Amino acid sequence: MTLPRLDGDALHRRLEKLATIGGIDGGGVCRLALSDEDKAGRDQCVAWMRELGLAVSVDPIGNIMGIRKGRRDLPPVTTGSHLDTVRTGGRYDGALGVMAGLEVVAALNRLELDTEWPIAVGAFTNEEGARFAPDMMGSAVQQGQLDLQSCLGTRDASGVSVGEELRRIGYAGEAPWFRASGFLELHIEQGPVLEAEGVTLGAVTGVQGISWTELTLRGVSNHAGTTPIALRHDAGLAAAEIAVGARRIADEIGGGQVATVGSLSLYPNLVNVIAQRAVMTVDLRNIDEALLQQAEARLGLLVDEVAARQGIKAEARGLARFAPVAFDAGVVGMVADLAVEAGASVRRMASGAGHDAQMFAPNCPTGMIFVPSVGGISHNIAEFTAERDIETGADILLRAMLRMAQSGGFP
Amino acid sequence: MTLPRLDGDALHRRLEKLATIGGIDGGGVCRLALSDEDKAGRDQCVAWMRELGLAVSVDPIGNIMGIRKGRRDLPPVTTGSHLDTVRTGGRYDGALGVMAGLEVVAALNRLELDTEWPIAVGAFTNEEGARFAPDMMGSAVQQGQLDLQSCLGTRDASGVSVGEELRRIGYAGEAPWFRASGFLELHIEQGPVLEAEGVTLGAVTGVQGISWTELTLRGVSNHAGTTPIALRHDAGLAAAEIAVGARRIADEIGGGQVATVGSLSLYPNLVNVIAQRAVMTVDLRNIDEALLQQAEARLGLLVDEVAARQGIKAEARGLARFAPVAFDAGVVGMVADLAVEAGASVRRMASGAGHDAQMFAPNCPTGMIFVPSVGGISHNIAEFTAERDIETGADILLRAMLRMAQSGGFP
Repeated sequence: MTLPRLDGDALHRRLEKLATIGGIDGGGVCRLALSDEDKAGRDQCVAWMRELGLAVSVDPIGNIMGIRKGRRDLPPVTTGSHLDTVRTGGRYDGALGVMAGLEVVAALNRLELDTEWPIAVGAFTNEEGARFAPDMMGSAVQQGQLDLQSCLGTRDASGVSVGEELRRIGYAGEAPWFRASGFLELHIEQGPVLEAEGVTLGAVTGVQGISWTELTLRGVSNHAGTTPIALRHDAGLAAAEIAVGARRIADEIGGGQVATVGSLSLYPNLVNVIAQRAVMTVDLRNIDEALLQQAEARLGLLVDEVAARQGIKAEARGLARFAPVAFDAGVVGMVADLAVEAGASVRRMASGAGHDAQMFAPNCPTGMIFVPSVGGISHNIAEFTAERDIETGADILLRAMLRMAQSGGFP
Repeated sequence: MTLPRLDGDALHRRLEKLATIGGIDGGGVCRLALSDEDKAGRDQCVAWMRELGLAVSVDPIGNIMGIRKGRRDLPPVTTGSHLDTVRTGGRYDGALGVMAGLEVVAALNRLELDTEWPIAVGAFTNEEGARFAPDMMGSAVQQGQLDLQSCLGTRDASGVSVGEELRRIGYAGEAPWFRASGFLELHIEQGPVLEAEGVTLGAVTGVQGISWTELTLRGVSNHAGTTPIALRHDAGLAAAEIAVGARRIADEIGGGQVATVGSLSLYPNLVNVIAQRAVMTVDLRNIDEALLQQAEARLGLLVDEVAARQGIKAEARGLARFAPVAFDAGVVGMVADLAVEAGASVRRMASGAGHDAQMFAPNCPTGMIFVPSVGGISHNIAEFTAERDIETGADILLRAMLRMAQSGGFP
């Protein structure tokens, strides 16, 4: 049996062409959500969708859906991702999933294959959250996880709202809310695991739960020379102890538990002044909700212990909290099986980052395919995935979509 | 025997009057070195010196010396401090030492006492270093520890030089370099020790040695969600481990060893990004040079160990290094004895901060008297020392100066 393949060269040409829209020095891309560059990327995507014969619609949060009819008039089996990037983004994050979706359709057209269920390709608004918070906005609103009106009213740093920008760039659509029978997204890993293990594909089991806490520690500012150790209430030292302790919590819980103190600021931040105040963030993630809650509880105990011992006041503020998302076991297994059939190495893995797919997970059978990120680098102009890996991932996407489109999403 | 006392009320009036020059909201003072406010403070000081019959001279770095003749034409036994403040300073730091010196002279005048050695009161230029680096500039140049020309050429943040400002405010003098037979400075402690122990006076044994190091740690910036713990090179975690380890070094060396990480900055400093770079300072101080060197060596080993374990690069840059300064045992003992005679509680202690006195220490018998700082607070509008403590300290200064002025500085 010859396995269906999509046109790898055509996929690379689409990625290359798209990367010229908002292209920045060094090969990167800047297409901030709803900017002129984002509009140009959207326009190109819509043109390609029309060339492929897809029925294009735009919904009120600006998601672009291109639908290829199936034999049955039912919600489509869907793929897609996002076209927006961070300010100094790469050419694969998001773009790969949309462009691969177009090539899935092109392959079906070439093979003159009619599927039972329709097939759709989506380009979702503001996945990055780099200009408007929160991220994954378009897919979240479409799939009923966020309120449309509050998202339309969200403003960027210069005070412009999502709604105003959607109207300005001509993507404030009126299509009814799209529903999918199944969803499968191809995306770069944005992490180092696949490359480090020499594996080509990730069959993504779900998205880690995320817990972000901001800690404000208040001690007593004093002279670094004249204040004996025993009389200090050093907010900076307390912050350092919490940062070290957060890593220890991750080590002790083990598995996929991660803990990161990415932001830490001292005040007044002078060489010879004991810090009066420290503001820091702790980012905890785990695919297992119970373990994530354990990590949160241990962080709370750690902060209390350090604060009491150092004689400082600690205040915690939740910045974000998302429960882990589990993808459909059938979809995950199908991706793994198809990879093995194709002779590609594959591992099951959780996603450490958020993706549009997670917004579909409560509503229909959902999964993701990861391809390796060289050096684990993303959100950076140096973002790179080897052409061969992209082609392998896209082929598996094609085969999985075909299978799901014969069975209403359930593989 | 009635011990000579100075006029406490007059001293408080002088301090109060001086605090109105450059006074800021909340009772603080801003007399940045060589500013208009500093000039006004200097003019007031010179006027008071002349009223007291002192021969006033100004040297090329702007130090003001007021001299009361002795029976012998020899270098004066000297007291004094500085009139400049930090931007949000208090009313005692520096001012107390100069004003108390004036009241020592006033007391001698009232008692019509002729001393063997002349007595001088100095107001030294730019002790704070808040506008021009380095601090203790005036006393250092006068006592041959710093080069005049390079100090005159030093510029503030706006590009104005010390030499230009001295000429502008009329304090670029031509007096020959002043030499002292002995030096004793009254100053607020600027630390919490005296208050915490309920002791009124500090007989200062010397000034701690200071070692300032800036560390730049370079790791790999990566996604806080997608990067497993084992694949991280987290510059922020390395910085936190070094901050915790620096305190451990101080604890283990014990005694007066202090270690402070007052400044710590992460880059890019985002909640969900592992820090690529951390820049931090480590401030180590000890009165014992050998122990200070031990602390420096242990810090170096700690940085190497953390860098190797976390897989980050560490670069160290020395920001400042001053050896400890020991004050004259005779002067220290005299201060302690006079305090006991006066029924005041006293403790020997090292100064954790730098003072003009240390510039005299290599050249003549030198000491300092500390009075308590409430809450250990200084360089702050909340700086406060109780009137009674000020009077006790000033009385001991008067008696010590009298004794030193009979014996050429050697008590």
